[in-house]
Amino acid sequence: MPHSQSTICKACWQNMRVPIALRGPLSIPFRLIGVKSSRMNPNLCTVCERFFSRVYGKKQAIFPATVLFADLRGYTSMAEDTESEEVVEILDEFYDECADAIWAHDGVVNKFMGDAVLAIFNFPYTREDHAEQAALAALDIQKRWSKHAPASGAPLGVGIGIHTGQASIGEIGKACKEFTITGPVVNLASRIQGAAQSGEILVSDQVYARLAGRIPSSGERDVQLKGIDAPVQLHPIHLQ
Amino acid sequence: MPHSQSTICKACWQNMRVPIALRGPLSIPFRLIGVKSSRMNPNLCTVCERFFSRVYGKKQAIFPATVLFADLRGYTSMAEDTESEEVVEILDEFYDECADAIWAHDGVVNKFMGDAVLAIFNFPYTREDHAEQAALAALDIQKRWSKHAPASGAPLGVGIGIHTGQASIGEIGKACKEFTITGPVVNLASRIQGAAQSGEILVSDQVYARLAGRIPSSGERDVQLKGIDAPVQLHPIHLQ
Repeated sequence: MPHSQSTICKACWQNMRVPIALRGPLSIPFRLIGVKSSRMNPNLCTVCERFFSRVYGKKQAIFPATVLFADLRGYTSMAEDTESEEVVEILDEFYDECADAIWAHDGVVNKFMGDAVLAIFNFPYTREDHAEQAALAALDIQKRWSKHAPASGAPLGVGIGIHTGQASIGEIGKACKEFTITGPVVNLASRIQGAAQSGEILVSDQVYARLAGRIPSSGERDVQLKGIDAPVQLHPIHLQ
Repeated sequence: MPHSQSTICKACWQNMRVPIALRGPLSIPFRLIGVKSSRMNPNLCTVCERFFSRVYGKKQAIFPATVLFADLRGYTSMAEDTESEEVVEILDEFYDECADAIWAHDGVVNKFMGDAVLAIFNFPYTREDHAEQAALAALDIQKRWSKHAPASGAPLGVGIGIHTGQASIGEIGKACKEFTITGPVVNLASRIQGAAQSGEILVSDQVYARLAGRIPSSGERDVQLKGIDAPVQLHPIHLQ
């Protein structure tokens, strides 16, 4: 993996000053009690992922966060006409490229579902510049993905949407507990992603303001999004 | 939980005759090495979920399966205008009711993402009548959910889509491994769910044929689904 690997859980250290060893011989006692690297981000631990209520004292809490959705354009049509091994191979590469790009910018991969990815920035490891990190991860995903060419057929592009704001983060479900982020910020990020064209990254006004011109945009456009009353101003960002 | 709990992993016993204790004192050695009840179904174990390649000798395999998608209608608009605690409470109840209904019919909850649920029937625990079990789980979800009334606002209905066929099941991603089902059967089930109205369960011809009249349908309709070339015949099923 190209991103740097931490020997202890970055979030447990940052938030609680508890050193949870993730790698090397010191990690053995932790692994014996089931505490290991999180699948959402290898620099975090399963305590961050599974014991939200015990760490934060409640099932849900409100945190500022940036949400990134990415999705393969034309996936359904492609999956109709393509051998299943090839579809799996494309998803395999897509998941790995997305995960690497997201982890390199301290985000967590909260969900993969089919050809869609949901990533969270600023939780549980916090960074003041989380909106910018999400934008950089998105640029990284597009850059990495542009180098992939499927064995047959037209290449599938990625559409990405990013929004930032206060979100509810924690566990949902009692019998079937899920670490999940909810709130209007998530729904809007998902709708923004739906409006992005193949190869495009669209960010909201709130994200764009936090980039402070460090990542350029090719203008802005007002878009009417499904389930959202007023039109939303979006900024397509790109590499310099 | 209303469904019966197994003391050993049902799939490891069925497929390999290996008794993996999930509950009681015999489960302690398993839990010490990190093998415990799966979050996808409490009657299965984490070996079923996380060690697909080791158990099946390859990353992916083709199995017959039934796929169920359920989704809360009007969730995005509701989440826009509702306090986040109330949204979380609604999702909490929705996740638990869906999980209980799916588990009671030997399905696994593969993914929750926002207001959407993806369940698989016939893997890893196989049943000849998996299509019927999925249909019964769907009826159970609708029945349970019809008893819920949110504290404020209009109640949200559930739309459900079910399709059955050969699917590719296994692990996707190398660095970021995910237990996932892929293939046209998954995409079509998702599109069928998109065509279902609030409170409705739509099943494909293939599912309907396997119900053999044991669950009634109120007619059939041809629907043009996004990303699918030809119109698809769908059957709305309901309780007798």
